Parts: sequence; structure tokens; C-alpha cells
Amino acid sequence: MITLTSDFGLKDPYVAEMKGVILNINPNATLVDITHEIKAFDLRAAAFTLASAAPYFPAGTVHLAVIDPGVGTKRRAIIVETKTSFFVGPDNGILLPAAKNQKIKKIHQITNSKLMLPNVSGTFHGRDIFAPAAAHLDKGIQPVEFGPEIKDPVTPDFAQATLTGDSINGEVLHVDSFGDIITNIRGKDIHFEESKRVQVEFASKTVETAFVKAYAEAKPREPVILVGSHGFLEISLNKESAAAKFNVEAGDKIKVKSD
Amino acid sequence: MITLTSDFGLKDPYVAEMKGVILNINPNATLVDITHEIKAFDLRAAAFTLASAAPYFPAGTVHLAVIDPGVGTKRRAIIVETKTSFFVGPDNGILLPAAKNQKIKKIHQITNSKLMLPNVSGTFHGRDIFAPAAAHLDKGIQPVEFGPEIKDPVTPDFAQATLTGDSINGEVLHVDSFGDIITNIRGKDIHFEESKRVQVEFASKTVETAFVKAYAEAKPREPVILVGSHGFLEISLNKESAAAKFNVEAGDKIKVKSD
Amino acid sequence: MITLTSDFGLKDPYVAEMKGVILNINPNATLVDITHEIKAFDLRAAAFTLASAAPYFPAGTVHLAVIDPGVGTKRRAIIVETKTSFFVGPDNGILLPAAKNQKIKKIHQITNSKLMLPNVSGTFHGRDIFAPAAAHLDKGIQPVEFGPEIKDPVTPDFAQATLTGDSINGEVLHVDSFGDIITNIRGKDIHFEESKRVQVEFASKTVETAFVKAYAEAKPREPVILVGSHGFLEISLNKESAAAKFNVEAGDKIKVKSD
Repeated sequence: MITLTSDFGLKDPYVAEMKGVILNINPNATLVDITHEIKAFDLRAAAFTLASAAPYFPAGTVHLAVIDPGVGTKRRAIIVETKTSFFVGPDNGILLPAAKNQKIKKIHQITNSKLMLPNVSGTFHGRDIFAPAAAHLDKGIQPVEFGPEIKDPVTPDFAQATLTGDSINGEVLHVDSFGDIITNIRGKDIHFEESKRVQVEFASKTVETAFVKAYAEAKPREPVILVGSHGFLEISLNKESAAAKFNVEAGDKIKVKSD
Repeated sequence: MITLTSDFGLKDPYVAEMKGVILNINPNATLVDITHEIKAFDLRAAAFTLASAAPYFPAGTVHLAVIDPGVGTKRRAIIVETKTSFFVGPDNGILLPAAKNQKIKKIHQITNSKLMLPNVSGTFHGRDIFAPAAAHLDKGIQPVEFGPEIKDPVTPDFAQATLTGDSINGEVLHVDSFGDIITNIRGKDIHFEESKRVQVEFASKTVETAFVKAYAEAKPREPVILVGSHGFLEISLNKESAAAKFNVEAGDKIKVKSD
Repeated sequence: MITLTSDFGLKDPYVAEMKGVILNINPNATLVDITHEIKAFDLRAAAFTLASAAPYFPAGTVHLAVIDPGVGTKRRAIIVETKTSFFVGPDNGILLPAAKNQKIKKIHQITNSKLMLPNVSGTFHGRDIFAPAAAHLDKGIQPVEFGPEIKDPVTPDFAQATLTGDSINGEVLHVDSFGDIITNIRGKDIHFEESKRVQVEFASKTVETAFVKAYAEAKPREPVILVGSHGFLEISLNKESAAAKFNVEAGDKIKVKSD
């Protein structure tokens, strides 16, 4: 089984070209899209999305992720082998958060041109290098066959939430399609009681929220805060977009403080 | 075979998480997306879309639909068993129009936590309850294993078209991506002769149309009315969006009258 | 294996209906979407996209493409058999560029109603005629079973790039989701040296570009020109949309001239 994550969108032939390459090498591969609608070159959104989805896939899954602003430069192509699965993509940090959750065993660079397409372009390694690598891994080729082990992968430098006095300073990690504001504050790091009032400070506005368990506990127009299905604190509005109402987007600072 | 319908969109990891859960339980499942672009919480659009697509799938298909504004509340999770297939989703009416077309045999509530993910969140039953149920059904687990039979499903209260004198009063059910205006008036309930002139009253405008068999019979800028592939009356413009031109959206009233 | 290309978008049930029809006839078919986001009725974009993706699929693949402004008229439904695969769709030119790359063997019209759905609508031959044809072909039914051979397919009249003196006159073929401007000038027809300065004339503006191998060679705000993964000349900006900056869309004239 191979999952695919990219910023290629769905209107161009790029995703299909990767799938064609995979199925040419491995006609029995099961392909599952995670998303191809990552904002162009947004490494943090890619890392977050992959880390959210990967835990739900079976052991042995190969996760292919191509958000690759450095394509055609010296940035390395890598395979991250974990205790349960494989991650394939550029060495720019997008694979590591998901892989670390599964305990990393080894990381190999992809240098063996026999396991690439015969003609490697300077513009589309997703098709020419990463898709073939994923297909061969899924067929059982070992990571060591692709190239040398490396010890110094590029480590993502995504902002972490920090506790300061009685408040938590974080960032907006992602705004989902419902307009829910997903922060980088882990649910397991906060200890709010249910129905507790929680103050949320955005750049331009401070709002009072209630800490709840489910979106549907929110009354109309009343913002709530909860631990979402990703395990992070989310701010949500009943059947409205909280992000639109509070004019918030990914990367914005946020401060959370319980009474 | 399992189909998936939701309002999750394609940019977030939610759809992939459901698919991962299914494939973890049942690696041989064939997954087919109906759509994930239902407008957030639009139960009628979900019901219409599922009822349109379901008849074309093989007997035995499990149709999973998650448009779920009540997630985390007391709304029930259900399995509707019909003469030919299964429908899995929240008990809010979205499954019934499609299921009724296939004759409903029994409806079971999903209460057996052994057939759910170990940790059920308050925010994402699509992943934690419905996806596992669909996977287990597809593997052959019987509906009775999931929980008690129920006799009082929530019945959708979608507006029906009505005949008044010599005109039919209906509503716009859906605007498709070509801008065709799909009404809730069934083709089998009208008896227009081909090429007949038909008056269509929108809220702000009345237009003359010709009743035709195919979109391409329309002359440039001339609206036509026809029985579309869903079996409903549609108003269409030659290579233009009729909905944009007549400023119409889903839910708008409409009156149709033949000369 | 069957690929699908259309202008149906992903919010309506149309694509799922085609897939249901295929899987009903041939439950073992592997389905791969090329794209369903072709602009409505844009035959050139459809032909370009299909021709880009098809070479990466295994021999024997059936490519189904439904961009069909003439549905319900006398336009023919066809199967193009090439040395390596099959193309199924309306006889309006969208299949031929991809098929010619693989050497066309024979073209058959689809007239045998036993290989269609029992009720053929006037509005959705993708579901009623083309999807069943693709499914039957994938099961091994020979093209001759579908109808008579034809020798006069509709040949697309897409503009070709031309060399005039020392400059090449072309058109914008496609703007991809990164905003890269893909022209109809084939990389193999130009002979620029690396790092060479190349003048690009758009309708309203002339820009200086450097001829490079990879997007990432571009400095911030500096446009570059390169042979993209499709084999055509592309104009690109570093992590910005070149199409937005130079106000260019598909169909626009373009002139390219090396110093």
C-alpha cells in the first residue's frame, strides 16, 4: 500500500503521472491519496497532514510525500524507515514528524539510478525518482539498495508551543475546510476542566471560549475550544468558520489562558 | 466495495484517515469516492448526491456517508440494510432517499464498541465509528452484530415538488459544476412534448425555455429545460452557467409551467 | 487498468456514476483518475493533459476521456486502438494527440447497444456509453465488437508553434497550479544553451529570462524559461505564479527569442 501527499493540486497531470509510474513498476500497488491540496511549498502543512494521517494506515505502508521547492538542486532524496512503515520524499523535513511518531530505524539517501526512471528531469523528481522508489519499496526492495545511509537529515524547525506563566503561546498550524482553527498546542499538554472558560488571544482580538468535547456543544455564534481529532487544541464555531470570523490563518500567533 | 461521501473536502487529512482505518481492518476493500465536496452540513445535497450515484454500484456495496453536524451529541449512528446493499452514517436523514430506492430491509443502530476504534473522539465519528463499521460490513459481519434494530430513523424533510393547477412548484436541488440548475421535479411526473415551450419562474425573473432531450440542442444564449441524467428537470444554457446567469442557488423556489 | 479524464469536477456525482458502472461490469478494474478538473468543454486542455499522462501508464491501459460538449448530437463515440493501449471517448479530437504518440492501429465507432447501459440518456454518455465501453475493453472485448472501423476521425486543430526568422511564435497551452506558463513550443525544437538569455514576448509585456534546467535555479522575482516535465517550454517564477504576474492565460500568444 502506498499513500500520496503533494502540493500538485488535482487539475494537472502530475499526480496521475506519479501513479502511472508506480503502477507500471508494481501493478498490484494499492494507492491512497492523503491530499494533493497542500498549499504550494508549505512544508509545515505537509508535515502536519502526513503526521495526522499516517498512524491510521496498516504496518508496511509506504508514504510518498512530494512538496519539493528544492527539486533540481542538491537537496537529497531520502527513504525513512520506521518500526512500522516507510516514508519517501525530499530531505526537507516534511517526513520527520510522521516518522518520529513511529520510531525511526534508519534513513537512506536515494542515489541508485537503476531504481529511478531512465531519464530524470530537473523539474519533477516526484515522477522520476520518488514514485519509482515508493513502487520498488512496496515490492519489497530493501532501503539499503537505494543508496547510502545518512545520519544528518534536514530537521524541520517548526515553531513549538511554549508554556509561559499561566498561559500557553502557540501558533495556528492549519485551518481546515470547516474553518476550524487548529493550533500547535497538544491536547495532552493542557489540563483544562470540562466547561471551563478559556481565553484565546489572536493578534487583533481576544475571545472567551468554553472548553468542550464536541463541536455540537457550541451554541450558535459562541466559539468553543476543544482537543480535536488530531490531538491539538482547536477553536471552532457552530456551523460557521471560526478562521473567517476571527480573521486567522496558518502561522498566526495565538495565546491560550484558562481562568 | 465501499463508497465514501462527505463534506470533508480534499485538503485536510480526514478522508485519508477514514480510508486508512478501513484498509487496516480490511486491506482488500475497494474504495470509491462519491464526493467529499458536499457543502459543509448540507444534508439535502448529501442525500441527493448519494441517491444519484448509489444505483450504479454493484449489489453488496457498502455506502459510507458522513455529513455529521451532530457528531458528539446523542444522534445515533446507523446501518441501513436494503435488498441490495448497505448504507452507513449518522441518523440524520442523508441515507434514506438512496436506501428507499433499493427497498429498506432493516435498520440497526451501531452501539457495539468492539466494532469501533479503541478510542472514540467527540469530533470525528467518520474515522472512529463509521469507517470501522463500513470495513467490517464489507468483510461480512452482519448488521445485527453492530447493535439493536431501530424502527424510527430520522426521516428527512426535504421539500417535494407539488402540482398546483397547471403549474409545478418546486425548488432548486443542486447546481452542478457546469452551472446546470437541477430541480426537485421528477421527469416522470411531467408530461411535456418535445420542443414544447416551457415557462420557468425564478424568484426575480421568468424565462422561456424549450423542452429538449440534450444540452447540445440549445442555441447559444437560449435556456433549455430537459430531464437530466439524475431523472430531474434541469435548466441549462449552451456552454454557459445557467445558475450564474439567472442568479439561482440550491434551495431557491422555482415554478414551471407549459404553454 | 482504466484511467479517467473529464471536465465533471469532483463535487457532483458524475464521476462516481461512471466508476460504479465500470465496477458493475468489471469488479476487478483498477481505476486511476487523471483529472476531472479540465475547464468545462476545453478540448485542448483535455488533449494536452491526456497526452502528458498516458505515456506513464502500463501497456494495455484503457484511457477513458469525457469532455463532451456534443453529447446527445450526432458526434460519434469512438475507441482508438494504439500499439500499446486504448483510448475511449467522443470523436472530437481529445484522444488523438495521446494516441498518435503510441502509433494508432485502428479506430472503431461504438454503435453496439449491447455494450452500453440499457437506457442511454441524451445528456450523459460518459456514464451510459463510454464507461461501459472502457469496462468491456478492460475485460478483453475486442474493439471490433463495438462497431465499424472508421477512417475519418475528427482531427484536432490545435495551434502549432512556428519558427519565423530567429524567433518562435507559440501559444500558452496550460497554466498549472503553481502558475507555471506551459507553452506549445516543444523542447526538442529549440536549441538554447544553458544560462542563455531568452526574451519572452507576452501580449502586453516583454520579459528577459534565463534558460535553466530546474525551477530552483531562479532567483527571487526573476523569471526563468526551461523545458518542463511535459517536454514543452515553460516560463516560471521562483515560488510565485508567473501566470498571475504576467497576466497570462491558456490560449494567449507568446513569442520566444534568444539573444
